[in-house]
Amino acid sequence: MSKPKRQSGVESAPKSGGKVPAERVADLAAASRILAAQGVVDGFGHVSMRHPSAPDRYLMARSLAPALVTPRDIIEYDLESSPCNAAGRGSFLERFIHGEIYKARPEVMAVVHSHSPSVIPFGLVDVPMRAMFHNAAFIAAGVPVFDIREKFGATDLLVSDGAKGVALAEIMGKQNIVLMRAHGSVACGPTLEAAVFRAVYTEVNARIQHWTNALGDGRPVAALDPEEGRLADALNLGAGMRAWHLWRTIVRKQVKW
Amino acid sequence: MSKPKRQSGVESAPKSGGKVPAERVADLAAASRILAAQGVVDGFGHVSMRHPSAPDRYLMARSLAPALVTPRDIIEYDLESSPCNAAGRGSFLERFIHGEIYKARPEVMAVVHSHSPSVIPFGLVDVPMRAMFHNAAFIAAGVPVFDIREKFGATDLLVSDGAKGVALAEIMGKQNIVLMRAHGSVACGPTLEAAVFRAVYTEVNARIQHWTNALGDGRPVAALDPEEGRLADALNLGAGMRAWHLWRTIVRKQVKW
Amino acid sequence: MSKPKRQSGVESAPKSGGKVPAERVADLAAASRILAAQGVVDGFGHVSMRHPSAPDRYLMARSLAPALVTPRDIIEYDLESSPCNAAGRGSFLERFIHGEIYKARPEVMAVVHSHSPSVIPFGLVDVPMRAMFHNAAFIAAGVPVFDIREKFGATDLLVSDGAKGVALAEIMGKQNIVLMRAHGSVACGPTLEAAVFRAVYTEVNARIQHWTNALGDGRPVAALDPEEGRLADALNLGAGMRAWHLWRTIVRKQVKW
Amino acid sequence: MSKPKRQSGVESAPKSGGKVPAERVADLAAASRILAAQGVVDGFGHVSMRHPSAPDRYLMARSLAPALVTPRDIIEYDLESSPCNAAGRGSFLERFIHGEIYKARPEVMAVVHSHSPSVIPFGLVDVPMRAMFHNAAFIAAGVPVFDIREKFGATDLLVSDGAKGVALAEIMGKQNIVLMRAHGSVACGPTLEAAVFRAVYTEVNARIQHWTNALGDGRPVAALDPEEGRLADALNLGAGMRAWHLWRTIVRKQVKW
Repeated sequence: MSKPKRQSGVESAPKSGGKVPAERVADLAAASRILAAQGVVDGFGHVSMRHPSAPDRYLMARSLAPALVTPRDIIEYDLESSPCNAAGRGSFLERFIHGEIYKARPEVMAVVHSHSPSVIPFGLVDVPMRAMFHNAAFIAAGVPVFDIREKFGATDLLVSDGAKGVALAEIMGKQNIVLMRAHGSVACGPTLEAAVFRAVYTEVNARIQHWTNALGDGRPVAALDPEEGRLADALNLGAGMRAWHLWRTIVRKQVKW
Repeated sequence: MSKPKRQSGVESAPKSGGKVPAERVADLAAASRILAAQGVVDGFGHVSMRHPSAPDRYLMARSLAPALVTPRDIIEYDLESSPCNAAGRGSFLERFIHGEIYKARPEVMAVVHSHSPSVIPFGLVDVPMRAMFHNAAFIAAGVPVFDIREKFGATDLLVSDGAKGVALAEIMGKQNIVLMRAHGSVACGPTLEAAVFRAVYTEVNARIQHWTNALGDGRPVAALDPEEGRLADALNLGAGMRAWHLWRTIVRKQVKW
Repeated sequence: MSKPKRQSGVESAPKSGGKVPAERVADLAAASRILAAQGVVDGFGHVSMRHPSAPDRYLMARSLAPALVTPRDIIEYDLESSPCNAAGRGSFLERFIHGEIYKARPEVMAVVHSHSPSVIPFGLVDVPMRAMFHNAAFIAAGVPVFDIREKFGATDLLVSDGAKGVALAEIMGKQNIVLMRAHGSVACGPTLEAAVFRAVYTEVNARIQHWTNALGDGRPVAALDPEEGRLADALNLGAGMRAWHLWRTIVRKQVKW
Repeated sequence: MSKPKRQSGVESAPKSGGKVPAERVADLAAASRILAAQGVVDGFGHVSMRHPSAPDRYLMARSLAPALVTPRDIIEYDLESSPCNAAGRGSFLERFIHGEIYKARPEVMAVVHSHSPSVIPFGLVDVPMRAMFHNAAFIAAGVPVFDIREKFGATDLLVSDGAKGVALAEIMGKQNIVLMRAHGSVACGPTLEAAVFRAVYTEVNARIQHWTNALGDGRPVAALDPEEGRLADALNLGAGMRAWHLWRTIVRKQVKW
């Protein structure tokens, strides 16, 4: 994988990993709109997909509010998060979240970054997020919290370069979710559909845990245990496609792709 | 009632219980969309109706997100939850919830299964759900909680076969609602309209109880007592049709059936 | 005011108080839809208006979900809540709430009954509702709670006859709001617009008080005092028309009246 | 800057500061609709913009619900909040909030006043609002609370004259937000877009802080510290335009300006 010279004003763009089926590009654009419709992202947040035939490339929208993304807004990046085909289109400052996770986790095929509001409290206080129901089963494996301050001191909180992306990916480890203190969270998965599903149900799970916590007021909470989590997550990877089918159908009624 | 041989690859489908009026099939499809519009179901969840003239058959959509269901998606099942007329259409994994309740409870004519988010906390902590207002009166009779782990150990949480359906129906007993730990809930009733009404107001009641619990902070809660519950529930079975009329009218504006 | 013989099968209907301007009837129908759009009523709840030229008559929709009401659904009643012009149209079981308040409170010109969900907890636990901001100023005068059980024992919770309506109006006293235990609430005012405004901001105020209560956790709450309440309520009766103008404009875009 | 004689019935209107580009007037009208769509304002609340070429003038809609504002509703005011071009159009009673902040804070170019419901509790109990995530970074500098009662005794809570506006601006000091006890809040910024962004994320931040507070139950909260707040706020002034672009695009689909 070629590493572009970051400091040079005339660096050449990395080569493309090859053509991606139009349907998959459309699905990625639709994923942005789905996340907006589900309240996971607002004007901010982004979803990416590893290039289906070139593991050292990934696809992500140009810097644009998720609800407005179209297939024409999708840019290809190398794993240093340098655009292959920007053609004047601006990139998200935090694309390094995606690039560094793809580098560290070869099995991950899609990544969602969001500021999903119900999730943020779990990155601010020392109460672990747990899996409240089977749709959020993947959470039962544990939810690490990344505090950018530990390694980088006072910042604007953004994961805006490779070093910060590496640090985030390290905290994430083998999990499929990581919370970012005073910022948001990242969910990933073995398919685009799985990553979107997990981002959506992380937010739903957070809402349910807030109410469970208030209702229980210190009583034990019969959340999924890790084995239940493993079994239900395996099921979700298949059955979750029913939700994707619904969400994709709704987007298709609004656009022609 | 013929019991199909589950293990056989060439088992024959059970016979149909006879033709169902198109209007009732349309109402069942509409019930799916109503539950989605009311926030009781999302990409998941299902509603069924006992066959109006064959008590050993029931009707339910093929495996499809509730908001997308049309009358053409309705499949007939026997009480073993084997499809009479699948014709290549997939079935919900959890249809056994429905089949086993119809078997155990001859007076039940409709069943709703959902993951209604405000309800889930009551299946996770030891705080009983109570009837906060007259629309949720049926809750005053008591709300049992089914924990699949007690009998089946670590699972994917789904009620995906007859044995699990039987266990769920046993815990439900004579009530018209049962919570499922770390999963969701089931509501049923003597008519399709009543089951939908109860599913909707179970979710509303849960939201009200969360706030009442927080507001009261340990003070006594003047919920409906069982006798008030009995009287108000009887009334709801008639007056509840006003809500059904509203919901059905809205669906009718969106589809032609 | 003629008192119809309730038991008689052939009782004659009370006389009409005279023609009401079509614009006012349309406003009353619009008020139903406004309350539905604002989340104050769902399939249930109702709003009425005293007859503008006959103080011993009032106007209210036939038994119908508020979001569906049109001017053709408006029925005239005497203060015994007997319809003057039902013409086969069904009446709300709880119209006695309205009739008895009009009887007891000559200055009240409109009444809203709802099961507004954030309000219900304040009727279930012994924590008084207070005015959290100036829009809900009328609450600062105090919010009585009616428990139907005290006088009538176990019931279906409905105010379904004159005696129950009288008891409710007595508890309401001189206030413009009364909570109904395990049921809902009633708001009234000197104009239709004021009663709708108060019903809407009672619900908003309840939501704000829930969060204030949780945030404060026992700390003092700097709610409006009675004098601030009096001053701000007087202002709302005028300035509140800005909200009515918005809501009425939205209804007008959906219907032709 | 000419000071009109307030008591005179025949006072002449102050002179206009000159023509404002139609696009900026349209943006201001759109800002009203954006704030309504984002749930920051309802029938009440207002946003203003300092005149782009005359620092002693500002622009604000006539007294009208924010969701209905069009460019034709924009009025120009001097800093005494006297209209230059009312032409029979009514003014908001609380325009003095805007005029007095523009006087006291030369760098402020836009002001939003709202009754944003999640924010109100922080003005009622002694718990400071803190910045829960980077989008609300400007809150990390501190959030003063204005209690109108301290200087003016029992009032209708409105900032309805210059003296009250001066008192509010004094409490606000150098911050870009001030809460108003039992009323609402004010957010301001160096551009129209920044003030709208801050008003929106003040409401979002308040929701997040409510849940963080409930979840933490007394545990430390790792909110943004002032230095993180300063860095992230600087970033938001640029990156926040992505949200404005989304919101403005949505308004543009609904109107022709």
